[in-house]
Amino acid sequence: MRFFSDNTATACPEIMAAIHEANHGLARAYGDDEWTLRLDGALSAHFGTPVRAFAVTTGTAANSLALATLSPPYGAIFAHREAHIAVDECGAPGFFSGGAQLELLPGEHGRLDGETVGAALAAHPRHLHSVQPAALSLTQATELGTVYRPVEVARLCELAHTHGLKLHMDGARFANALAFLGCHPGEVTWRAGVDVLSFGATKNGALTAEAVVFFDLTLVRDFELRRKRAGHLLSKSRYVAAQLLAYLESGIWKRNAERTNALAQRIGTAAGKALLHPVEANEVFLKLGAARRQALRAAGFEFYDWGAEAEGDARFVVSWDQPEQDVHTLCEALARG
Amino acid sequence: MRFFSDNTATACPEIMAAIHEANHGLARAYGDDEWTLRLDGALSAHFGTPVRAFAVTTGTAANSLALATLSPPYGAIFAHREAHIAVDECGAPGFFSGGAQLELLPGEHGRLDGETVGAALAAHPRHLHSVQPAALSLTQATELGTVYRPVEVARLCELAHTHGLKLHMDGARFANALAFLGCHPGEVTWRAGVDVLSFGATKNGALTAEAVVFFDLTLVRDFELRRKRAGHLLSKSRYVAAQLLAYLESGIWKRNAERTNALAQRIGTAAGKALLHPVEANEVFLKLGAARRQALRAAGFEFYDWGAEAEGDARFVVSWDQPEQDVHTLCEALARG
Amino acid sequence: MRFFSDNTATACPEIMAAIHEANHGLARAYGDDEWTLRLDGALSAHFGTPVRAFAVTTGTAANSLALATLSPPYGAIFAHREAHIAVDECGAPGFFSGGAQLELLPGEHGRLDGETVGAALAAHPRHLHSVQPAALSLTQATELGTVYRPVEVARLCELAHTHGLKLHMDGARFANALAFLGCHPGEVTWRAGVDVLSFGATKNGALTAEAVVFFDLTLVRDFELRRKRAGHLLSKSRYVAAQLLAYLESGIWKRNAERTNALAQRIGTAAGKALLHPVEANEVFLKLGAARRQALRAAGFEFYDWGAEAEGDARFVVSWDQPEQDVHTLCEALARG
Amino acid sequence: MRFFSDNTATACPEIMAAIHEANHGLARAYGDDEWTLRLDGALSAHFGTPVRAFAVTTGTAANSLALATLSPPYGAIFAHREAHIAVDECGAPGFFSGGAQLELLPGEHGRLDGETVGAALAAHPRHLHSVQPAALSLTQATELGTVYRPVEVARLCELAHTHGLKLHMDGARFANALAFLGCHPGEVTWRAGVDVLSFGATKNGALTAEAVVFFDLTLVRDFELRRKRAGHLLSKSRYVAAQLLAYLESGIWKRNAERTNALAQRIGTAAGKALLHPVEANEVFLKLGAARRQALRAAGFEFYDWGAEAEGDARFVVSWDQPEQDVHTLCEALARG
Repeated sequence: MRFFSDNTATACPEIMAAIHEANHGLARAYGDDEWTLRLDGALSAHFGTPVRAFAVTTGTAANSLALATLSPPYGAIFAHREAHIAVDECGAPGFFSGGAQLELLPGEHGRLDGETVGAALAAHPRHLHSVQPAALSLTQATELGTVYRPVEVARLCELAHTHGLKLHMDGARFANALAFLGCHPGEVTWRAGVDVLSFGATKNGALTAEAVVFFDLTLVRDFELRRKRAGHLLSKSRYVAAQLLAYLESGIWKRNAERTNALAQRIGTAAGKALLHPVEANEVFLKLGAARRQALRAAGFEFYDWGAEAEGDARFVVSWDQPEQDVHTLCEALARG
Repeated sequence: MRFFSDNTATACPEIMAAIHEANHGLARAYGDDEWTLRLDGALSAHFGTPVRAFAVTTGTAANSLALATLSPPYGAIFAHREAHIAVDECGAPGFFSGGAQLELLPGEHGRLDGETVGAALAAHPRHLHSVQPAALSLTQATELGTVYRPVEVARLCELAHTHGLKLHMDGARFANALAFLGCHPGEVTWRAGVDVLSFGATKNGALTAEAVVFFDLTLVRDFELRRKRAGHLLSKSRYVAAQLLAYLESGIWKRNAERTNALAQRIGTAAGKALLHPVEANEVFLKLGAARRQALRAAGFEFYDWGAEAEGDARFVVSWDQPEQDVHTLCEALARG
Repeated sequence: MRFFSDNTATACPEIMAAIHEANHGLARAYGDDEWTLRLDGALSAHFGTPVRAFAVTTGTAANSLALATLSPPYGAIFAHREAHIAVDECGAPGFFSGGAQLELLPGEHGRLDGETVGAALAAHPRHLHSVQPAALSLTQATELGTVYRPVEVARLCELAHTHGLKLHMDGARFANALAFLGCHPGEVTWRAGVDVLSFGATKNGALTAEAVVFFDLTLVRDFELRRKRAGHLLSKSRYVAAQLLAYLESGIWKRNAERTNALAQRIGTAAGKALLHPVEANEVFLKLGAARRQALRAAGFEFYDWGAEAEGDARFVVSWDQPEQDVHTLCEALARG
Repeated sequence: MRFFSDNTATACPEIMAAIHEANHGLARAYGDDEWTLRLDGALSAHFGTPVRAFAVTTGTAANSLALATLSPPYGAIFAHREAHIAVDECGAPGFFSGGAQLELLPGEHGRLDGETVGAALAAHPRHLHSVQPAALSLTQATELGTVYRPVEVARLCELAHTHGLKLHMDGARFANALAFLGCHPGEVTWRAGVDVLSFGATKNGALTAEAVVFFDLTLVRDFELRRKRAGHLLSKSRYVAAQLLAYLESGIWKRNAERTNALAQRIGTAAGKALLHPVEANEVFLKLGAARRQALRAAGFEFYDWGAEAEGDARFVVSWDQPEQDVHTLCEALARG
């Protein structure tokens, strides 16, 4: 029973069907096909405002291309110290931006709070000897499976903008956040002040499809050139665009996210006091200790150890195609203590 | 009737079937799945020597990641002045390498010859004020639809190695070159001295799949880190690996390439004196003049204008799924002059 | 008798005196000293327009920092194919800009002409697959010792601006050009449309001092951060600023340049038919052949071989402190044939 | 009375004399002059082992060029969180290395300790998703005016090497550290395991001169090319080399450092309980509070506020040419409380 990662999942039937449907006839290359040309409209409709949207195939590409558009080479990018861009992308933001520096901040349950961010931005020097604050990157849902409320996003965006920074949101699990909040997609993005969103679909049922969504439309020409130059403009772009269209239009973004969130909730509840962070998306973090981790592995559960070895923590992620029985069995095991 | 580009084609049934077949069960993420783990073996078998192979989704990524592994930031990369890396990738080699400089050389019909390359390498300064010769990149088949013979590749590799350069081959249309030559894949690559190959599948029937194939195995760790950092390590890597496996194992690489080569030959023959370069792959370059270009467009043919406007040249590319009737009609139109 | 390079010269007495004069009392560090703070004024006076000026210690730094301010990483920088930035700076523009690509053009006697530049700019693609034309860099005086007339600079600037490029002038030997032209410094720079000038002093009598002079004042903040980040903001900035002030205010820029130009003219005249390019600055290029090069060396003359070995060409540079007798002896030797 | 920074000082008479002495005759350019060619020998003699040494003009250049030689673009550079490379160089290590990431560690009084470093290196992931530990950078003397003992350096070097990292020492105030320790220069560098040293002279009496000293001789070719490409190879290199030779051979490195250390000691003693860190070099850090800072300023003392405003801390730096009377007056003021 695998709870490693939502990246271990398959692709949804709706996604596969969309790829098939796109697989007929000649289509213009490099994004001038009918599927890709519909992306702006589909994501504009989803967010309730005119956006420009660009398909890429990985979250690292989405995040780093977006950040390179927001930050000069001498910029500082503020993020949570557990952020994916900081610990899981092999220094990609530094590569794409030409050397921008990450300024990592603490924050409970993977979330940055206004006080910490406000203090950091106020204290950061602006003189020539220092990197220049350029962007704040929030992860929604966070790396610890929690979710920013719209009012929290708005507060952080306001702080960022007041200090002259742009706001990037890493939405690798954006659908899970949205399913948890139950709000309109615009409420927690552009209406709150987000400038650019990495809109993830891969973890939530796509084969390999992410979109970079620009609410700030002034930035797109720079982005497009950076994308091409980084090898992230696909020649047969239709196959990624078709995935994103199906993801949005079939409603699977919501259905899958609601399902995995609900299953994660059940695990969290079963875990009781072992729970480390509120379960607000499809990830569950538990303090188990070495013996219990071993026992669960012996019982057939696969999951990641998390953090320092001595802590004995573990991460369980529910995938869109996870059998309900897996979750049921895990809950029973956890409830037994 | 579209002769724009082989990037406008669909994906082969065999490729689609392979993606479907890969779409079951949980698989480890980021390349530890069973499909990706078979890539080295499949490509080693194809080339008849142990290789390390890495899947990516674009030719620009394949080329530039390979070149960044071969060249330091202060390196010089020698290539034909019509090379894709020079004119069609928005400066990607400079981005990936941290500033390596292209040294572009002329060469008839898109091919570099030993005399030109030898003279350029011998003349290039090695002192501190100059970029340092690091890699020679050959395109096989070339951008003008011609093919290097094994003895030519061997001569160029020898020159490169003698002068301390590594040899990269851009094989976006490698299958077409191989189908034309009718030789063993090893003969025109590692046996001739190629160190790294960008092995293209997308243009010849895949959905989106290229492999970087290392014959020089010492370079792969550096490559792997650069790939991750550039956002080109896919989380659900199985879907790209499965395409490459099917491409090799079903024999479509050969079948498709032989078909498109043969159809291109027919166009070339029909074109008669208008033909600009020998037809050795699936591309045909014609000197038409403005009037004839317009007439062909009026007759429903779609193709790229090529080179300077005043020349009136045109490029026709045959795709793997091009209806034979298209080619027939084109040949008739060309034969009418 | 050394005619290698004007970089082999000493520093002028006026420069040494200025360094001494600056060497008293505590001064604020990193450019907030009284000498550095006078630079803008001194260069504004020199050019007859408000400028911002920044001291650096090498021509490579001046050129590449300026170009990195003018060009995005995906930019194309157009220059003569003999330009110092192209052949003598180890790829520095690529490093500082994050990968901008040089587009090198031919031009008689080291000078670009409007026709060539206009055609290149008009033909250069603007689509996503290509680097984007960003800057035109002119060298004044050129690498072949010739000088652009104001009307030529104005024509090239107009072409650049019309096509959306910025204009950089590499003035490592700007004083020699100005001494030759006898015009106001503004006439061949900002009035003609130059946006940024690398204003050289080192070759013409300074110890180590160059200035980057911005006529386009919108670009300076970006430049300042890039300079610091590249290690080119000196902590004890006063010593470089003092050199530049003395260079301008003592008139040595003119005196030295007029002297070396005149001496170079004498060599050019003595060389007769061997002369390869008009002598308009302090450099003389001669077609000597191997035997005559050897004979001159045997007679005690030191100079650089130039270009391809088979050509037998040679470069002679007159330094500000070159004994007149050296030139006299060389002229006699050349006149003997 | 200025206690801002040792960068506000003048250049020593011995340095000025050396520049004058170098200012005669033609010398080969770009480091082939007799002064530069003596650098390796002079620094080899100083350190008691064969080294390769390269002159540059700023500490930022020395540090970042050295680090770029030690770290790949996907490398992690470990340093104290107050290190100059982390907070005062506008992200220079990221620029020079092509995006290497700083991993900043805490440590009492500006010093890293073995426990912290060992734990950080042991915990740092080596998988593809993470930047790869490449270099540890120590500052000697530290940014807080303290000094590593040889045994501490040796311990940290051993940890670094055991984990596959190279060891860089930022010695902007190396002379002060050495004067404090009273040991042989080799004892706290190569004998302890340091691979590359930024050897500062500017702050301690030079006009503008730093050396990058390689104890690991395998790295120098890469360094030389990076230096040229970054605009840090001076055409008239003799003037910087002459400063470094005089600095070493006249003994001013020691005389100046001993003097400033001793004066700083007096300030530290006078400060009593306000002292924040042991005074081991020429810097004194005091907890003064806002009122006392203001009173000292009103009394004519100039110094930097340090750290968070609310803390009320201050930094005083003694320059080599600081009048003893300044220190005397400051001590009296501090002793009055």
